[in-house]
Amino acid sequence: MKTETCTYTDAGTNLKGFLAYDEKVSGKRPGILVMPEAFGLGKNAKNRAQRLAELGYVALGGDPFGDGKEFSDLQDAIKVAGALMADPAKFRARARAGIDKLASLPQVDATRLAAIGYCMGGTFALELARDGAPLRGVVSFHGGLQTQRPAQAGQVKAKVLVCHGSDDPMIPTPQVNAFVDEMTKAKADWQVIAYGNTVHSFTNPDADGSMMPGIKFNAQSDARSWLAMKNFFEEIFAK
Amino acid sequence: MKTETCTYTDAGTNLKGFLAYDEKVSGKRPGILVMPEAFGLGKNAKNRAQRLAELGYVALGGDPFGDGKEFSDLQDAIKVAGALMADPAKFRARARAGIDKLASLPQVDATRLAAIGYCMGGTFALELARDGAPLRGVVSFHGGLQTQRPAQAGQVKAKVLVCHGSDDPMIPTPQVNAFVDEMTKAKADWQVIAYGNTVHSFTNPDADGSMMPGIKFNAQSDARSWLAMKNFFEEIFAK
Repeated sequence: MKTETCTYTDAGTNLKGFLAYDEKVSGKRPGILVMPEAFGLGKNAKNRAQRLAELGYVALGGDPFGDGKEFSDLQDAIKVAGALMADPAKFRARARAGIDKLASLPQVDATRLAAIGYCMGGTFALELARDGAPLRGVVSFHGGLQTQRPAQAGQVKAKVLVCHGSDDPMIPTPQVNAFVDEMTKAKADWQVIAYGNTVHSFTNPDADGSMMPGIKFNAQSDARSWLAMKNFFEEIFAK
Repeated sequence: MKTETCTYTDAGTNLKGFLAYDEKVSGKRPGILVMPEAFGLGKNAKNRAQRLAELGYVALGGDPFGDGKEFSDLQDAIKVAGALMADPAKFRARARAGIDKLASLPQVDATRLAAIGYCMGGTFALELARDGAPLRGVVSFHGGLQTQRPAQAGQVKAKVLVCHGSDDPMIPTPQVNAFVDEMTKAKADWQVIAYGNTVHSFTNPDADGSMMPGIKFNAQSDARSWLAMKNFFEEIFAK
């Protein structure tokens, strides 16, 4: 397994991504962009990129903020992430830059791309889908489902899988229902899995509930959603 | 593969089930009750029982009405099914009889049981869970989610997986939301998968939309939900 820093740019911002792939495999493989939580490209997203590489994919952990910036304080993260998300064109462009980089890599089959993301990263993935990015699929794990630019009919090319913690205080039921309406009207290929007894950040082992009770790891929902993603990729990447 | 008629009784009603298992395998295996649609134990449920047997399980297609009664007309089916469902104690007992029969079979590991069902059969499976039946799990495919006897806290022993067509006219969103509330309050282990572009009876290849547009097969959602069930069984039957 090879992991390395992978730099790319978005409109003058230097982005510091994390690339993982099996260097012993020859030939082009599907490429997956992994967008992280609002804390920046950290341990959890990098770990997921490595696990995707172990599954045979080329995975790029995307840098949302530039220069690999990370935050440990939630309020700091919300401030910077909020500013980025406030401008939907910039927000989408930031994720598109990662997709473009991935597609340009010699190991990657540019006709077989996907994006996944955690929390804000899930929203990145969904915004790529709404934007009509040329992806086979997107997967959101506890990602926010709201958007300033709802998908229009026929616009979504990617198949969409949303893994949602049913008790996530940041993504209440009306938001899920609105997303379902949006995707249905857009005639997207979509699935939403709701996991009971599950709150925000359920995939992150470091979320121990101390930051707030609504942000907590759930090993079972993590395992179930990872398997759902794995099967989804087998479906969408079948030639 | 061996398939055979399997008779059992429920309070004086003679039930004519359909048993499927691999007779070349020795040793006890998990047992799965398959409850059919309101048309009675027919082709689709029997086919599923055989497919479960191919996966290594002992599967019993349950007879909901007695003497293997089947209906081809929807109104006839609704009349008889409606009468049975109107009495929740009788309805639950009818499914329990299938579980008891399954548990008594020499091929079955009675500590590893599950129930699945289609349409009304999904409701049968969920009512078993609400009733605290000793099952590892239940799976409902386009099953009605309403109940006269909501589950109480701690009552549900089975893990619950609901596979739901998002456009199912018989199971509108408020019914799904009420189910989620019920399961959450009951502290059950539950998951709901909503499939976009999918209506009622999405697993049944004979549902061609001619009976009503809201009853129609969807090959993709059928395949996805079957795989979700398969993974669920691997999880719940792991020793």
